[in-house]
Amino acid sequence: MAAKAGTDGGADTIATGDPPAVDLVDDAAVADPHHDVLMERYVRTRRFSEQIAQPLSAEDCSIQSMPDASPTRWHLAHTTWFFETFLLKPTGDYRPLDPSFESLFNSYYNSVGEQYPRDKRGLISRPDLEQTLLYRRYVDQAMQTHFGCGELTDDQRQVLEIGINHEQQHQELMLTDLKHALSCNPLDPVYREGECEHVDTMRTSSWIDVDAGVAKIGHDGKSFCFDNELPRHRVFLEPYKIANRCVTNREYLEFMEDGGYQRPEFWLSLGWATVQDKGWEAPLYWSKQGSRWTQFTLSGRKAIRLDQPVCHVSYFEADAYARWAGCRLATEAEWEHAVCRGLQRPLAATQSGHWSDDLIRSGRCIHPSSCSVADREDAADDALGDAMGNVWQWTSSHYSAYPGYRAPAGALGEYNGKFMCNVFVLKGGSCATPSGHVRPTYRNFFAPESRWQFTGIRLAKT
Amino acid sequence: MAAKAGTDGGADTIATGDPPAVDLVDDAAVADPHHDVLMERYVRTRRFSEQIAQPLSAEDCSIQSMPDASPTRWHLAHTTWFFETFLLKPTGDYRPLDPSFESLFNSYYNSVGEQYPRDKRGLISRPDLEQTLLYRRYVDQAMQTHFGCGELTDDQRQVLEIGINHEQQHQELMLTDLKHALSCNPLDPVYREGECEHVDTMRTSSWIDVDAGVAKIGHDGKSFCFDNELPRHRVFLEPYKIANRCVTNREYLEFMEDGGYQRPEFWLSLGWATVQDKGWEAPLYWSKQGSRWTQFTLSGRKAIRLDQPVCHVSYFEADAYARWAGCRLATEAEWEHAVCRGLQRPLAATQSGHWSDDLIRSGRCIHPSSCSVADREDAADDALGDAMGNVWQWTSSHYSAYPGYRAPAGALGEYNGKFMCNVFVLKGGSCATPSGHVRPTYRNFFAPESRWQFTGIRLAKT
Amino acid sequence: MAAKAGTDGGADTIATGDPPAVDLVDDAAVADPHHDVLMERYVRTRRFSEQIAQPLSAEDCSIQSMPDASPTRWHLAHTTWFFETFLLKPTGDYRPLDPSFESLFNSYYNSVGEQYPRDKRGLISRPDLEQTLLYRRYVDQAMQTHFGCGELTDDQRQVLEIGINHEQQHQELMLTDLKHALSCNPLDPVYREGECEHVDTMRTSSWIDVDAGVAKIGHDGKSFCFDNELPRHRVFLEPYKIANRCVTNREYLEFMEDGGYQRPEFWLSLGWATVQDKGWEAPLYWSKQGSRWTQFTLSGRKAIRLDQPVCHVSYFEADAYARWAGCRLATEAEWEHAVCRGLQRPLAATQSGHWSDDLIRSGRCIHPSSCSVADREDAADDALGDAMGNVWQWTSSHYSAYPGYRAPAGALGEYNGKFMCNVFVLKGGSCATPSGHVRPTYRNFFAPESRWQFTGIRLAKT
Amino acid sequence: MAAKAGTDGGADTIATGDPPAVDLVDDAAVADPHHDVLMERYVRTRRFSEQIAQPLSAEDCSIQSMPDASPTRWHLAHTTWFFETFLLKPTGDYRPLDPSFESLFNSYYNSVGEQYPRDKRGLISRPDLEQTLLYRRYVDQAMQTHFGCGELTDDQRQVLEIGINHEQQHQELMLTDLKHALSCNPLDPVYREGECEHVDTMRTSSWIDVDAGVAKIGHDGKSFCFDNELPRHRVFLEPYKIANRCVTNREYLEFMEDGGYQRPEFWLSLGWATVQDKGWEAPLYWSKQGSRWTQFTLSGRKAIRLDQPVCHVSYFEADAYARWAGCRLATEAEWEHAVCRGLQRPLAATQSGHWSDDLIRSGRCIHPSSCSVADREDAADDALGDAMGNVWQWTSSHYSAYPGYRAPAGALGEYNGKFMCNVFVLKGGSCATPSGHVRPTYRNFFAPESRWQFTGIRLAKT
Repeated sequence: MAAKAGTDGGADTIATGDPPAVDLVDDAAVADPHHDVLMERYVRTRRFSEQIAQPLSAEDCSIQSMPDASPTRWHLAHTTWFFETFLLKPTGDYRPLDPSFESLFNSYYNSVGEQYPRDKRGLISRPDLEQTLLYRRYVDQAMQTHFGCGELTDDQRQVLEIGINHEQQHQELMLTDLKHALSCNPLDPVYREGECEHVDTMRTSSWIDVDAGVAKIGHDGKSFCFDNELPRHRVFLEPYKIANRCVTNREYLEFMEDGGYQRPEFWLSLGWATVQDKGWEAPLYWSKQGSRWTQFTLSGRKAIRLDQPVCHVSYFEADAYARWAGCRLATEAEWEHAVCRGLQRPLAATQSGHWSDDLIRSGRCIHPSSCSVADREDAADDALGDAMGNVWQWTSSHYSAYPGYRAPAGALGEYNGKFMCNVFVLKGGSCATPSGHVRPTYRNFFAPESRWQFTGIRLAKT
Repeated sequence: MAAKAGTDGGADTIATGDPPAVDLVDDAAVADPHHDVLMERYVRTRRFSEQIAQPLSAEDCSIQSMPDASPTRWHLAHTTWFFETFLLKPTGDYRPLDPSFESLFNSYYNSVGEQYPRDKRGLISRPDLEQTLLYRRYVDQAMQTHFGCGELTDDQRQVLEIGINHEQQHQELMLTDLKHALSCNPLDPVYREGECEHVDTMRTSSWIDVDAGVAKIGHDGKSFCFDNELPRHRVFLEPYKIANRCVTNREYLEFMEDGGYQRPEFWLSLGWATVQDKGWEAPLYWSKQGSRWTQFTLSGRKAIRLDQPVCHVSYFEADAYARWAGCRLATEAEWEHAVCRGLQRPLAATQSGHWSDDLIRSGRCIHPSSCSVADREDAADDALGDAMGNVWQWTSSHYSAYPGYRAPAGALGEYNGKFMCNVFVLKGGSCATPSGHVRPTYRNFFAPESRWQFTGIRLAKT
Repeated sequence: MAAKAGTDGGADTIATGDPPAVDLVDDAAVADPHHDVLMERYVRTRRFSEQIAQPLSAEDCSIQSMPDASPTRWHLAHTTWFFETFLLKPTGDYRPLDPSFESLFNSYYNSVGEQYPRDKRGLISRPDLEQTLLYRRYVDQAMQTHFGCGELTDDQRQVLEIGINHEQQHQELMLTDLKHALSCNPLDPVYREGECEHVDTMRTSSWIDVDAGVAKIGHDGKSFCFDNELPRHRVFLEPYKIANRCVTNREYLEFMEDGGYQRPEFWLSLGWATVQDKGWEAPLYWSKQGSRWTQFTLSGRKAIRLDQPVCHVSYFEADAYARWAGCRLATEAEWEHAVCRGLQRPLAATQSGHWSDDLIRSGRCIHPSSCSVADREDAADDALGDAMGNVWQWTSSHYSAYPGYRAPAGALGEYNGKFMCNVFVLKGGSCATPSGHVRPTYRNFFAPESRWQFTGIRLAKT
Repeated sequence: MAAKAGTDGGADTIATGDPPAVDLVDDAAVADPHHDVLMERYVRTRRFSEQIAQPLSAEDCSIQSMPDASPTRWHLAHTTWFFETFLLKPTGDYRPLDPSFESLFNSYYNSVGEQYPRDKRGLISRPDLEQTLLYRRYVDQAMQTHFGCGELTDDQRQVLEIGINHEQQHQELMLTDLKHALSCNPLDPVYREGECEHVDTMRTSSWIDVDAGVAKIGHDGKSFCFDNELPRHRVFLEPYKIANRCVTNREYLEFMEDGGYQRPEFWLSLGWATVQDKGWEAPLYWSKQGSRWTQFTLSGRKAIRLDQPVCHVSYFEADAYARWAGCRLATEAEWEHAVCRGLQRPLAATQSGHWSDDLIRSGRCIHPSSCSVADREDAADDALGDAMGNVWQWTSSHYSAYPGYRAPAGALGEYNGKFMCNVFVLKGGSCATPSGHVRPTYRNFFAPESRWQFTGIRLAKT
């Protein structure tokens, strides 16, 4: 039988949300008051990556469908490499499983050294999935040996925190890269059977007004955040309006039926060139079967549901739609300010039923859901509906450094800063985003032609 | 003898700055109090384009050295097409010289119709230079017939103003595109003999401090500006420092000698990929002859002068240099605010001796000059030296719409708005920028890998 | 444990050369006098493909390292598709396992219909290896049901024969494509441990003289051959000399050390452009480690052995070497005539110890061996040494139709004829060529830049 | 006025075929019995190149429309460079006009040194047309000084002969490259007004039978030929049939209307890929205006004439047409043998009214003419109609060395031999081929996708 990526976890285990014991970390240890909470999160995070891979065959885990995407197996190895490289090797007391992994699984850290070419990750068959899982065990065990009893320095704690968040970011990429990979197969393979979430009553579209003034943007640094969310700083916002929910498939189809993809007047120049060059006629994963639009999902091909937010659109499409609608996209600051002022109590990762961990555990189709009337029961009237953890929302803001931003010293300084060019900020998190990353200050960024993330549209206007 | 681009103007005419009479517009008409001042500027602008082309052969005017650049002859025709298309045709009382020019010289206006492919402009030999100059005469005459006696409507006046500014923008491009074209010839051809400006005492480098606060940015709209400079709006600026002059060749050479082009840690990820891909080792037009760096100029190949501002660097190089120097580039708002607050009296186009029209008339080498102690005699101590009309200065700001920006209706709405993607703002104007465009609110924009404009570096820090 | 491609065959089974029983075909049936000999060969051929894949993981079987190469799993499926499409479906009494395989595993038969894009075969993870092996079983069973008792028509017999030969051709490709795939991994993975064959005494190089005259070339059609070997026809050969063995690594290294890869005078114009473009400095798979050349083999990285024939060179390199040596390559007719006249008794597939099936069964490294004094004990003095089944020998002949050639009607007409453009003929078979294909009239063909087959050099001169 | 390429020759001069005097060579010298006949041909050949360029503007002479084509001005300079490099410099008594021309106008001679990149020839504006003509004068004068009185050594005589033939080859390229360049202009520019030749009665299509046997192919070397035509050698030809005239537009349109460009079964695999990739639907220069096919010619756009031979087809199209017609293309040997046996008296360059020099002088449209009943009055019944000097005829033969071929030593060895890869032989010469090159043994060669020469189709079958 072909190897399955997870070790032993069955579907029921996943559904409960209660990760099963593995031999390296017993539950007693987890309960141990001396046990480090961060290491506990480490263990859960590591296990969750493998749970994502669990339904997949060795072959599924091997595909690289485009240079921007990576094979699942590479994600499993690279996230492991991160802990090995930035935590274990510096201890001076660690022997790597295989020294050649240093370059093989280095994504882009020039400070660490050479990197195996990014666009050729799909050509590496060894270490295979089984050996990769052994590599994970090996590093996990070393992590326990070195850090299992709470003896982390502050610096190590900081790197460990980054490593956990790093692996969580890759969990989202595992899902989106996989979706792209499977979509290349005309057989429409299913990652996991599942139905999309049902919603009784759609939220009616309306505008939320925001007054002019100086707003504060960015993370306050009191809990973990990425360097690019810092420092919190002041911006001046002229008055603006922002939509109370994201654009739906129904609305987007109106744009399409109005010749949206055929009329250059709605498009950025680069966007129009891209539409022509790639022959785009609809969002990614859509295809028309007879008179009916369908979309490829992680649960196979399904009919388009009109009330769901449109998804897998590029910045170019988001911008063109907005222009067609006589609106524009919000800036990052407008978006962040609007979300934060609409929040009546602190956002907590656990509060929403459809954020990613739960979604993955739930067995539903991993896909954005419609924005219901009561997106959150306690939401203020002017709260932004489906802002968080449903679809990433393109902003009109180029991904640039905040005033006073400093990249960390050393290799981890390459984490964010060097990508601040020709990419645009996305806010809010998607149905595939790990809960902990769904916060208003989080800055996701992709090139304007990218469509393989769960990306949608929220309108604004002046 | 091969045709020369100018009609009859000799070098002396250019040196005096006094454009010669052409038969279509006699000086009496210019002196006529009923004559429209705008039409007078039209005539002078049209004449100046031809003066730029005057030293060139028919062959020189034909080359397209890269898709981003255009042949001189195309510039001469396209700027003419602009008036024909947006002013003459709408009168309903104009017969075009050749209907096929409508698409042949349409640069990118989808609203007007089809366009001859941009990257193939060098393949068009007809209309040749002589016929192109006739096309100019034909349109100039029609302009006089229609608008020579001041009967312009407000709308027409607005389009005429844009058309003049449009042609002036192309005057700068004529020089920079030509420089690139000639540089492809191993014979190092000379556009026009000329020496670089000499400066006795370099300005010492220092930092100008700017306090935090709300600043106003953008054009006030009281005189002509492009749509992208509007609307004037408020921004909040955290405190920053900005350099009192641009980075010199001497300073940039230190970066190069410190391995600047070999060390990825200074570079944006895309920048480093570009350096590798294109084999960059120095700014554009530089080449090392023995142990000595030289640069190709519009007056042929010359030795690098250490006190001159470094020029023909990409955004990637500007950013890498700044990182190497422990600094950063200024944002557009920081730059504009710093320049405006340092100005003791209103900037006027005529006040500086080295702005472009004069430079072209002066017979000097068209090249940035060193920043002297007294860049402007009346400048405040904290004025930015060589900010205006010497080298374009890369800012860290992506070229995006100002809050409340609206593209004009119709084809002219394609002028600026649709290019707001993956390009960065440059400020200040260069030695090749027409005087009237050298204003603090002007927003020039180029892709981060572009190097063929006269682009340099001004540092900032927090 | 990750799936292995073979069902149950262990290494010992392979070493004995005695294929193990599988449940679909019992040995009794094979021994049955009523059993069709062709179906017997079918069974053995099918089994041998799986034996080739047997040492590989599911991941190894998934890689497509370049558009010209295919994943092992694809080869396993496509060869199955061939029988399904051209034998089973026409019976009208066959239900395909999955109708979507018709286009998914169609290589290039436009007459059959659409084809999944060739360069994306590595993006297909499903059917996975296990399911692919089931697909093979399914088709094998249907083949038994339909044709297991000798009831084949002549047409069916002919297609079956082609199908078997087709699968054998893919067996060679499985090995060469796999070698290329594994070579992309910096870990130098081993397909199968094995030593290269040892030879005591090298054959001394000498020239064989052949007189002018009309020779007969091409297959006589009395046994199976491909359409492109027909018809046998007359050619006139001017007198020539041909080398008695292939060029060795030692000889090729002299060329390299004499600046062979740096001196354009030896190269075809396209060859020199290729050398520059791809940065070739040695044959494919060679790399210099310190002062010592090594080569990647199917048994991992090994030192270059000087007496072995040089291998994995392109037509360009073969031609350049020949020019450097003051010689030339033989034409196809010269080669074929020289081989045929030197044969004292009919070539039989089984007579040579190092032809491919045996080689694979032997457990030696699948690599060309040195040409010993007694290449064949019964060889005439003027016999060509190592002509057959060691390295493919590039000829100077473009792959063109023989006079009177007719492609078969229907889809099988696409088998050979449509590739007669910009490819050159290779003769003799390599260490990876199935024995039955090692015949003097066989016409292999590859583009002049191809290097991933076991291709070497035999010199000729006028 | 823009420069014209010819110095002083008017249209009448061209029409008379009597080249006008230029100051470097007076007619007295030409009449001088001591004057070398070869130098006389030199002068006439040089003059004729300029006559070809005479109707062109400086701009027309500057365009490079694709890497395979060159600007007229480059042709004028490169042919001059040839004499300078291979005849004048070796005298040791020659000072070049500009040393940098050595690399600037070197086409592909690695033995001479560096070459300016072939695909950038259109970026060189200097030397301009006027200076290029001066360069021609300078070299012509030096040629007279050195060789004007018959003091040529045998080696020099041989190189001079090659140089003259080389320039004549470029004369054909000047016309075909120019046609391609002008065709990129939507204005359909006219090189020279002219009507296509009229023919009263088309030759009826029939087959000429040729028996099997050993034939002799290649040039006998008694007069000038290129190295690639040597040595004359024996080939065996199986019996074949060859068409008595070329395929007409009428016949080719039947292929098109039968779905020729939409049905893969007629095409080589590479050919079909090319059709798809480039969107071919007709021969080059054809476009459908309404329901009517037109073609771009050197005299502008004209209606397709059904009786004319189809022209500007690639090898792929020729081969596909032949397959559609149930035929094939002839091999080079079949073609040459068929032509030679049908000739009743020696071919002389002057005998045919429509060969190129005359055509150019005649003022007719430079385009193939229909094949009349009496193609040549003295032709045997089985002579091939329109075989010579009308359209190049694609053969199925790859361009390979003849048995015993030796490239000359030194740089001139690069003339032909190094291009023997991935190109196919064309025979017969076209309406643009200089008369002296229209001989049965001449071997023209182009890549199978090339269409910009005057290339047509002659059918054969077995």
